Amino acid sequence: MSKLDKDDYKHAVKQMSRELVDLARWVADSGARIVVVFEGRDSAGKGGVIAAIRRHLNPRHVRTVALGKPTEREAGQWYFQRYVEHLPTKGEIVLFDRSWYNRAGVEQVMGFADKGEVDAFLHATPTFEKLLTDDGIILIKYWLTTDQAKQEERFAERRDDPLKGWKLSPIDVASRAQYDAYTEAREAMLRATHTQNAPWTLVDFNDQKQGRLTLIRNLIDRIPESKVPRPVIDLPPLEGEPSEESYAVIDPLPDWVPPEAK
Amino acid sequence: MSKLDKDDYKHAVKQMSRELVDLARWVADSGARIVVVFEGRDSAGKGGVIAAIRRHLNPRHVRTVALGKPTEREAGQWYFQRYVEHLPTKGEIVLFDRSWYNRAGVEQVMGFADKGEVDAFLHATPTFEKLLTDDGIILIKYWLTTDQAKQEERFAERRDDPLKGWKLSPIDVASRAQYDAYTEAREAMLRATHTQNAPWTLVDFNDQKQGRLTLIRNLIDRIPESKVPRPVIDLPPLEGEPSEESYAVIDPLPDWVPPEAK
Amino acid sequence: MSKLDKDDYKHAVKQMSRELVDLARWVADSGARIVVVFEGRDSAGKGGVIAAIRRHLNPRHVRTVALGKPTEREAGQWYFQRYVEHLPTKGEIVLFDRSWYNRAGVEQVMGFADKGEVDAFLHATPTFEKLLTDDGIILIKYWLTTDQAKQEERFAERRDDPLKGWKLSPIDVASRAQYDAYTEAREAMLRATHTQNAPWTLVDFNDQKQGRLTLIRNLIDRIPESKVPRPVIDLPPLEGEPSEESYAVIDPLPDWVPPEAK
Amino acid sequence: MSKLDKDDYKHAVKQMSRELVDLARWVADSGARIVVVFEGRDSAGKGGVIAAIRRHLNPRHVRTVALGKPTEREAGQWYFQRYVEHLPTKGEIVLFDRSWYNRAGVEQVMGFADKGEVDAFLHATPTFEKLLTDDGIILIKYWLTTDQAKQEERFAERRDDPLKGWKLSPIDVASRAQYDAYTEAREAMLRATHTQNAPWTLVDFNDQKQGRLTLIRNLIDRIPESKVPRPVIDLPPLEGEPSEESYAVIDPLPDWVPPEAK
Repeated sequence: MSKLDKDDYKHAVKQMSRELVDLARWVADSGARIVVVFEGRDSAGKGGVIAAIRRHLNPRHVRTVALGKPTEREAGQWYFQRYVEHLPTKGEIVLFDRSWYNRAGVEQVMGFADKGEVDAFLHATPTFEKLLTDDGIILIKYWLTTDQAKQEERFAERRDDPLKGWKLSPIDVASRAQYDAYTEAREAMLRATHTQNAPWTLVDFNDQKQGRLTLIRNLIDRIPESKVPRPVIDLPPLEGEPSEESYAVIDPLPDWVPPEAK
Repeated sequence: MSKLDKDDYKHAVKQMSRELVDLARWVADSGARIVVVFEGRDSAGKGGVIAAIRRHLNPRHVRTVALGKPTEREAGQWYFQRYVEHLPTKGEIVLFDRSWYNRAGVEQVMGFADKGEVDAFLHATPTFEKLLTDDGIILIKYWLTTDQAKQEERFAERRDDPLKGWKLSPIDVASRAQYDAYTEAREAMLRATHTQNAPWTLVDFNDQKQGRLTLIRNLIDRIPESKVPRPVIDLPPLEGEPSEESYAVIDPLPDWVPPEAK
Repeated sequence: MSKLDKDDYKHAVKQMSRELVDLARWVADSGARIVVVFEGRDSAGKGGVIAAIRRHLNPRHVRTVALGKPTEREAGQWYFQRYVEHLPTKGEIVLFDRSWYNRAGVEQVMGFADKGEVDAFLHATPTFEKLLTDDGIILIKYWLTTDQAKQEERFAERRDDPLKGWKLSPIDVASRAQYDAYTEAREAMLRATHTQNAPWTLVDFNDQKQGRLTLIRNLIDRIPESKVPRPVIDLPPLEGEPSEESYAVIDPLPDWVPPEAK
Repeated sequence: MSKLDKDDYKHAVKQMSRELVDLARWVADSGARIVVVFEGRDSAGKGGVIAAIRRHLNPRHVRTVALGKPTEREAGQWYFQRYVEHLPTKGEIVLFDRSWYNRAGVEQVMGFADKGEVDAFLHATPTFEKLLTDDGIILIKYWLTTDQAKQEERFAERRDDPLKGWKLSPIDVASRAQYDAYTEAREAMLRATHTQNAPWTLVDFNDQKQGRLTLIRNLIDRIPESKVPRPVIDLPPLEGEPSEESYAVIDPLPDWVPPEAK
């Protein structure tokens, strides 16, 4: 049932956007540092909720970090090193579209990390995160859930829609049959890393619009007391008539017209 | 007259998005390197057209570069140095939201660069750009135009709309009265830097939707022969019934419901 | 007593250099990662012992990290962040000429960090270092000691010798009177951070040559079993007579001759 | 003939070091930017003369850049991009131990770059360098020459001396038979890139000590009027007796003693 209708969604997400704008202004003003980790099933909708969050925010206040495969140099470093590089300075919100938790998820399930490495990761992570939160960083971790039937539906859509084809990677395809292994890996991850100072929050993304609103509402409510008044900007009337564009060197392109209208 | 209706716009921009997806796949596949510079009036709509271009593209193939004020260290370097760092490697499209042309525009008009620096810039730039295009980089430069009355309208909207307030900077406000000085600076810039290998294209953004379509159509048409067949991906049926999520450690958040519905 | 004579020193340091070359080859070959931290009194001789260690090593295997004052951006980050960036990848030795321990030393004594920050640092550091050593990084920490009379002697030499003047910073001058405060700060640091997995080693640098040999000997002995046979390189005889330089465009400079010989 | 005796060399190089210290202080003070390129035969002595120059300089004023093989990402970029990143900011001297000229030397001779790439490089380089010098960067380029017999002697020494073995790379060995091809490549490079604003200087390094003095003297003389008075630093007498080290947590290592002395 739930199924929000489209206008309700638009209305609600716009309302929340205003609160996010306030929140980001508070972050910039107070010098807070916020890290939000987005993990979850392939196709769950990490990219979509991140885009919804960022949509109206000043890009100087919020950064998205989506790291690719480590280089050889990075692969030889301390595991957390390449993520640490992207942690926020005062006044920044950083959204991790996948994160160090790769090791506990895809790397484990697909066999890119061995059991020793995964165990070491699960052991080290709460300590690593405690260092960050002790330093005053606010660390919020979301895991987006989706039933396999829904996932299959979205994979089929990606296969068929030319606008979404690139989202379907060979790893995704190989991962399809590992749904239950991912569930197991997630539960082990939760057992090891759902801590007081850096707890996980699961959000149901079977309905993506619903999932976005649930997640964003939660995110806003996690940062209390984050109001800073909007700066008032004065735009006194211009002197004289407004100017128009005039061109001496080259002219603008002619307006595009629809093919049928030519 | 022109004023596209909303559905026409949506239909056209979606159509063009498909072509952009093809283009980006060709770039990745062929190893082409593309730099697109976006300059123009404050409020003209650089951010909006960049967002429209990127919307459906694989973020691994396209990057936006929007540099802030130079650090003291950067300010002491070769003027182009901090931009060079962001030039594309093979297979990449880089969109510069403002660029090295800052010096000929805002820096000149607002007095952050003196005449000697501006002249040196206008003299060096065609040479700098020739080095890039000689090396095989495709360099496309757009300047987005807007009449002052339209600009005023948009500034007022930014002042009044809580979602857009951060877009109105003190520099914008101080720049309002300098509309004609910007025109003059632009024409001088065009005279010096509208070259065979790196020509400028002006696009009228008094109507932003119209401007976006005109610009994107031009961009696509500038990269000829850019078709690579979409990879065909096979999704064989899964064995057994699709699994559902099940939770042993923590449960997902309850769905958000509209306040009135609680 | 001790005072090594000059030839003894040269002989011994050359002998140890051979062992260091072997050690660095083993690091490169085995993929080991080694971090060596050098802390100690101003003027104790950190730079000198680092230069002696590096002198004959392949610069691709060993890096020195000597960070300046943090930028504003860095000052707002997780305290360890800017150091983490320089940790070694597989096959590297990194020598930290001063390190994260700045906070427990000069920052504390000179009042650049407050008590809360110093306490937080002393509390976090063993945890931070444990993460590194658990990940397999070998972490060795030296603190170079010097009596105040000796320190005064060296400061006077820096003041008087034009080759050394830049080594005497205003902070050094201001630190002179704080010798005992530094002692106290060091002892607190040792109590908090002299751990099983990352112990401190103190080395007496009242006699710098003696100190260097003592430290380097200890460093070599800490990395056991580090022998990899030297690769044998064959240089077969060239065919024909060896060529000589010949110049068609410009000639080399005339040899420099001493002024009196002109 | 020439062969400087050891004491003469030491005396002269120390004298020049004082002038280099003055020069570096002037650079820091005046905000000058200096790039020195070191190219030349394998084994000619680039590393040695760079070490001699840097020996007494404040590392905050002078950097050495010795880039390895480009990563795949770098190899796909504008050829000069990875070098540009290391150009000096105001107040810095940057010493390039090999440089963009790799393409005209080793890459050409050993076949890592094809004729088209080399020609493009020789064509682009004067333009690239003109941009830098027009921007006010002082660009000085040295090429160190050595007869083949001398080169063979040094290769044999590297093969035999355990302290120098790593300096003899497989490329060096493969390059031995290409002495004349390197000569030819150098002459073509000189013809194309020995320009008014960025001329080459050849220095004979058959006698390395002689070569160092000749080069350093030339370098100093190229930067005229570079005197800034040394800051005078006052070290008032300490109050009370100087303190001695005292240890409460751990003691320093016992002094190293020569094996025979134990």
